[in-house]
Amino acid sequence: MDRRSLIKQAGIAGILAAGVAPAVQAQTAVRWRLAASFPKSLDTIFGSGEKFAQTLKDMSGGKFEVSLHAAGELMPAFEVVNGVQNGIVDMALTAPYYFTGKDYVFAFGCAVPFGLTARQMDAWMEHGGGRKLMDEFYANYNIKSMSAGNTGTQMGGWYRKEIKSIKDINGLKMRLGGGLFGDAMHKLGVVSQNMPVGEVYQALEKGTLDAVEFVGPHDDQKMGFNKVAPYYYYPGWWEGGAELEFFISTKSYAALPKEYQAMVDAACQVAARDMTAKYDTLNPIALKKLVADGTKVLPFPKDFMDAGYKASMEVFAENEAKSPMFKKIHAHMRAFQRDQILWDRYSEQRFSLYMSSVKL
Amino acid sequence: MDRRSLIKQAGIAGILAAGVAPAVQAQTAVRWRLAASFPKSLDTIFGSGEKFAQTLKDMSGGKFEVSLHAAGELMPAFEVVNGVQNGIVDMALTAPYYFTGKDYVFAFGCAVPFGLTARQMDAWMEHGGGRKLMDEFYANYNIKSMSAGNTGTQMGGWYRKEIKSIKDINGLKMRLGGGLFGDAMHKLGVVSQNMPVGEVYQALEKGTLDAVEFVGPHDDQKMGFNKVAPYYYYPGWWEGGAELEFFISTKSYAALPKEYQAMVDAACQVAARDMTAKYDTLNPIALKKLVADGTKVLPFPKDFMDAGYKASMEVFAENEAKSPMFKKIHAHMRAFQRDQILWDRYSEQRFSLYMSSVKL
Repeated sequence: MDRRSLIKQAGIAGILAAGVAPAVQAQTAVRWRLAASFPKSLDTIFGSGEKFAQTLKDMSGGKFEVSLHAAGELMPAFEVVNGVQNGIVDMALTAPYYFTGKDYVFAFGCAVPFGLTARQMDAWMEHGGGRKLMDEFYANYNIKSMSAGNTGTQMGGWYRKEIKSIKDINGLKMRLGGGLFGDAMHKLGVVSQNMPVGEVYQALEKGTLDAVEFVGPHDDQKMGFNKVAPYYYYPGWWEGGAELEFFISTKSYAALPKEYQAMVDAACQVAARDMTAKYDTLNPIALKKLVADGTKVLPFPKDFMDAGYKASMEVFAENEAKSPMFKKIHAHMRAFQRDQILWDRYSEQRFSLYMSSVKL
Repeated sequence: MDRRSLIKQAGIAGILAAGVAPAVQAQTAVRWRLAASFPKSLDTIFGSGEKFAQTLKDMSGGKFEVSLHAAGELMPAFEVVNGVQNGIVDMALTAPYYFTGKDYVFAFGCAVPFGLTARQMDAWMEHGGGRKLMDEFYANYNIKSMSAGNTGTQMGGWYRKEIKSIKDINGLKMRLGGGLFGDAMHKLGVVSQNMPVGEVYQALEKGTLDAVEFVGPHDDQKMGFNKVAPYYYYPGWWEGGAELEFFISTKSYAALPKEYQAMVDAACQVAARDMTAKYDTLNPIALKKLVADGTKVLPFPKDFMDAGYKASMEVFAENEAKSPMFKKIHAHMRAFQRDQILWDRYSEQRFSLYMSSVKL
């Protein structure tokens, strides 16, 4: 924030400073800038930034304002870590796994193949020690992290042709995220295609692309992929629950009065809770609409799930061999996850299975 | 809050009022009182109140303080609605279904048999229209509600003897909550026993009580029930996800400066998110300990699940016939739930089933 942010004492501050210390802080006018890795059209994710800024503004009586900038406004989508690290902006709203090009450890702040669900991620991060571990890592980039919400378990993407077995995956030209998931898919013979999301529709139509994975029904339906790739598979095993994160400049944060630090922390959590609830509300509505429009919703074949699992575990092992930090965080997350999976059997999973067996 | 709460302008306010209006509000010192329906020993639930108060204090620079009072300190556990309604306290932290004696509609603010999971409840409340509906109802009690967190799917309780079929339920002497669930269990021949939770252990030991339902592993383990009732059943179909709530006096809230209203809203959400994550983190640890100590964890027999479902639906129909408000809210919740169950099959449930099939 050093160069651009304004932190100024209101005029009255000098008068107050003598006898009424707390009031000086409450007077402080702060203006932050947030760079998002997303367009405004991703209303659920971008909306978390809006919720954050509005909450902060309301709590500070308009004195702490955050201006939101969509991808490309101040910097490209994938430059936001540099932006925060170098003090060009005070915050980013991003999907940490976009930055596995810098370090694969970033993935643990978002989603890894066969990783945690939304509830499990919240638990690991906030009470299981995950946030602390990640912030030790993020400190290398002058970043303090907070959840911005979770997409929930994502869909496995859109396919022009039916995937009957693992054989249909081999040679598939697919637009997909890189990092751990991309590496696992390459092992299975997928040919990854990088292209802007705006070009995907045409590529699917022409057949220069066979498949694309994006998010879930609410976001996906806006893209119209169902018209050119009618097979919609589940589950997106590479994103059992993707956490979007606020990356906060540790310098900008440290310069805040304590009250404002507390407000930033709270506003992030308000936004995070809001985004997850919004996704959960909107996804079923969009899914029903997609099905009504002819989308064929199918489960991934078991042999592809199993091959994906095996390939993913190989990718994890390769990264553990290369990076002690990766190994440490991965082991920590998996130990937590094993307990969660155990508990899930006796709680949500059992209840969920019964509820989907009755005609409510 | 009329009688007891202090809302005073700090001395400096008069000086500031002339030219710097916003500072006046930021100066306001407020002290609220919160009455909980719980003892401090329920650290997860009571802890949500502590998190709320601490967050508010930090954001206001110590100027907005909330004193927390465990059940019995200011009033008995089940008097807190009266306490808020009559302005004796500014807030309560409670399980709304404790108040089905006043009106069965209270149950929808907490949990109903075969109802919503934690994620679904958050979604229904915050983006699905549930909170708005409930607050229309709560307005009759001068209450504005906010989530204080969710227990997640609860366990089905502790039993002295194995439950092999619905026949073993008939005549069972059980300590259980009243309301919708209690009514359904009575239809199945359960003889409900009211007694303070502190007397349950001895009653189970003597055999004057056959079973007790409480919460989940983390809370249950403190009670030691496993020593006298070794069968621990799942899932607690009457609490697929129980929301604890903050009941806020609409008068106390209306008297706050707008900034403080925003802070109260945010602090509640911080607390809610924290409680759910804490339960999710602690429950598996406690479950493992209970199993190591000899607890037998078993699924309820299918015929009991089915009979419980049928009895519950009868109880819902009876209440719909009696209360238009009950009917309206129940129908709204179920319509939302049907969509959620559909989506769950393609997302969390499918992913969760795969994750519990692999040896991670």
